[in-house]
Amino acid sequence: MRYFEKVLIANRGEIAIRVMRGCRELGIETVAIYSTPDKNALHVKYADEGFFVGEAPPQKSYLNMERIVEIARKSGAEAVHPGYGFLAENAKFAKMVEEEGLTFIGPSWRTIEMMGSKIESKQKMREAGVPVLPGTPGGIASIEEAARVAEEIGYPVIVKASAGGGGIGMHIVNSPEELEEAIKGSMKIAESAFGDATVFIEKYLVKPRHIEFQVLADNYGSTLHLYDRECSIQRRHQKLVEEAPSPIMTDELRERMSASAVTVAKASGYRNAGTVEFLYSGGEYYFMEMNTRLQVEHTITEMITGIDLVKQQLAIASGQDLSFGQEDVSIRGHAIECRINAEDPMNNFQADPGKIVRYRSPGGPGIRVDSGIHMGYTIPPNYDSMISKLCAWGQTRMEAIERMRRAIYEYVVLGVKTTLPLHHALMHNREFVQGRTHTHFLQEEHIAQSLRRSLREEETRMATLADSLRQGKEMAAISAAVNVYINSRKR
Amino acid sequence: MRYFEKVLIANRGEIAIRVMRGCRELGIETVAIYSTPDKNALHVKYADEGFFVGEAPPQKSYLNMERIVEIARKSGAEAVHPGYGFLAENAKFAKMVEEEGLTFIGPSWRTIEMMGSKIESKQKMREAGVPVLPGTPGGIASIEEAARVAEEIGYPVIVKASAGGGGIGMHIVNSPEELEEAIKGSMKIAESAFGDATVFIEKYLVKPRHIEFQVLADNYGSTLHLYDRECSIQRRHQKLVEEAPSPIMTDELRERMSASAVTVAKASGYRNAGTVEFLYSGGEYYFMEMNTRLQVEHTITEMITGIDLVKQQLAIASGQDLSFGQEDVSIRGHAIECRINAEDPMNNFQADPGKIVRYRSPGGPGIRVDSGIHMGYTIPPNYDSMISKLCAWGQTRMEAIERMRRAIYEYVVLGVKTTLPLHHALMHNREFVQGRTHTHFLQEEHIAQSLRRSLREEETRMATLADSLRQGKEMAAISAAVNVYINSRKR
Repeated sequence: MRYFEKVLIANRGEIAIRVMRGCRELGIETVAIYSTPDKNALHVKYADEGFFVGEAPPQKSYLNMERIVEIARKSGAEAVHPGYGFLAENAKFAKMVEEEGLTFIGPSWRTIEMMGSKIESKQKMREAGVPVLPGTPGGIASIEEAARVAEEIGYPVIVKASAGGGGIGMHIVNSPEELEEAIKGSMKIAESAFGDATVFIEKYLVKPRHIEFQVLADNYGSTLHLYDRECSIQRRHQKLVEEAPSPIMTDELRERMSASAVTVAKASGYRNAGTVEFLYSGGEYYFMEMNTRLQVEHTITEMITGIDLVKQQLAIASGQDLSFGQEDVSIRGHAIECRINAEDPMNNFQADPGKIVRYRSPGGPGIRVDSGIHMGYTIPPNYDSMISKLCAWGQTRMEAIERMRRAIYEYVVLGVKTTLPLHHALMHNREFVQGRTHTHFLQEEHIAQSLRRSLREEETRMATLADSLRQGKEMAAISAAVNVYINSRKR
Repeated sequence: MRYFEKVLIANRGEIAIRVMRGCRELGIETVAIYSTPDKNALHVKYADEGFFVGEAPPQKSYLNMERIVEIARKSGAEAVHPGYGFLAENAKFAKMVEEEGLTFIGPSWRTIEMMGSKIESKQKMREAGVPVLPGTPGGIASIEEAARVAEEIGYPVIVKASAGGGGIGMHIVNSPEELEEAIKGSMKIAESAFGDATVFIEKYLVKPRHIEFQVLADNYGSTLHLYDRECSIQRRHQKLVEEAPSPIMTDELRERMSASAVTVAKASGYRNAGTVEFLYSGGEYYFMEMNTRLQVEHTITEMITGIDLVKQQLAIASGQDLSFGQEDVSIRGHAIECRINAEDPMNNFQADPGKIVRYRSPGGPGIRVDSGIHMGYTIPPNYDSMISKLCAWGQTRMEAIERMRRAIYEYVVLGVKTTLPLHHALMHNREFVQGRTHTHFLQEEHIAQSLRRSLREEETRMATLADSLRQGKEMAAISAAVNVYINSRKR
């Protein structure tokens, strides 16, 4: 099988390393790009070559399309892997790469463009017979139209920016009185954030689940799904915990949903790896959007299917057909991913960049760590706060939870605040253990309370550490803190 | 299901941590024991409680049976897990534990005793219909008897100590002229090493493979096998690389060998986890011995079957029956383990204890690390030199090899010499890649040559690092060396 000789990875951190791991295993040379603060980052050390791309701000570095394409050409790379975030879903970039005679490792720019528009993609999927949330078929033309549609589908409804993402510009509307203000607010935010004021209205589901399907499609008409993931635990519309498969999945539901996922992929002329996202509520599911790239949480699908998604991406992009059929894809056990962010869960998840003064990875059976950091590394303030992904596999969901608890106990990250204590609390939360989650889970008061309790204990310990550090007793303090920290995680 | 409340782990290093991981996942409290140099070792930090057991020499600490049983009683532990090595196959210790009213997590002391005698166990298995190497049925009574038997089975033959292990006292005899001297030599060594001069003679297989089967047996008559492992890559009769399943396994061979493995377990009244070891040569296999404990390489069986062997041990020992049958045990993919020892592979594998000045674990898909060390840790000179086990899983054997290469590239252990460069060379060795291994693999001249070449390059790099360290430029030197080291592993 022929793969590329050399691939440029247009990203940083753990996902750049993840892609390079796949490349190394296949004997493909890798080219890293780095901004000023990333000069000594792990992804640069990992690659065969590294090129400076620009100053710290993303616009000057990891979003600098012209410069990245120039480096790709200069380095002799045959293909570009965008990772996730940054330029991963930028149709213009994908087009630029292809026009340069290089391969963009992902779907065609036309597919990215179509799926990038929430209105257009939903419209298309509605026509293809995929369940879509009731709402305005396109952008709202007037407040009157919005009021009529909202009345039709019933309150609550949600106002969303067509070009949006990450929850930006979303407004929940519970009654007709709130509608006009919500729409105007959303339009204003959408205009300033995305340069496009188009907004639309949808049925708002109370406590829905976020369930998504991984798909793979080659260039020769073969489109498969790799089962489901549930990603309901979110804060500010950003996933924090994902698991595969969904704890509520049944054979019957999976049959219906996976068929819809494959329909979505086929209707969009999809190729390479992608994810079809649904909202699920009361036995019904609705197409939400398709992510036209590798997801953060692809790891847990790899754990239950045994299939390496990055290597599949590389195979498909280099023109190979899928070497297996739907009947060859089966799942074993259950996997959970916890996103470890350098954030303060006690302070509205504010980013907490800084130097890692102590770092120790968990290990043993069923544990996978994808990390971009190491001891002595300084997390720059310029980028995403996710520093590591901790995954646990078990024969059953309960075993996966027990292993995750154990791995959190083992994981030592000192020097910055992280979401580890939040995950500790979550993995012991009764509702979570019973699989009763939904996308507003972290906002529920009784859950927030139990989380706060656990986090406060952690806070006290971390404050003690910080004090000692300020007094210059660095090594002694760290050493003592590691012990306290470890002991605190014990039952 | 009821498990123990508290378990004492009568071991140190990675295996103590491995057992504690299983306990933690099941909510069982753990008691560590430690010798003077292990006061701050990771296994002590990991446990819920730690007790000082004695001075550094194993006889005073990890082999100090009375003291260990006393600590178990004092701590309120209900059971003792011996790990591997030290007291794991000591029938007297198992008996002492049981007589104290505690549970020994392993087979009965009678089974340990019987399997501990190579002569008795082989005799018993021959009677049970399991293929055993031709040789003297018991200890040799006279040189004349030995000469007659050797003539009968044909040269070469091997002289072994009945109470032996680890290759101690073994002599290969190629012709009748060498026989007498070999027997006398073996008896002398056996007497001084084991206090028992009994030796026996066996057919010596040229370039055999070491293939073993994992078994599990509960107290209620259920005895299963968990497939095969091949452990042919050895140095001085110590395994260095193991893989599961064996690359030469066929359905037909597996059927025969697994049936023999289960017969061995049943014939010895086996309970708990154990391993039946065979030599394989020219289509035939022969029972060698049974290891009545958890093996170092149990990890790779866990990776391909998904079954947690330590938790199965705990379940069986606490009186539960096996929750699954033979038909529920299936394998997925292929797994390889590389033993990372603090040894100098260029200098006859001499132990190289010392301080770990830089440590970075590999990660990503399919990688498992079981380690007892961390950055800043000083490996004491008193115990086994194995400091970590690096395992890689893949859908195919080739993917497992490719992942292992990648993980070796990622693994940074600086401060002591390790077997990492040897594994690097092995994973790129054509014969190994093609699965053409045997127990004398590392002694083959053409293989030794390629390994030496790879090791010499490593040696030069490490010498440069050591120089810088001696000059006191510690951090700068390490940092530079990490880069050199990483770059050197690139293709």
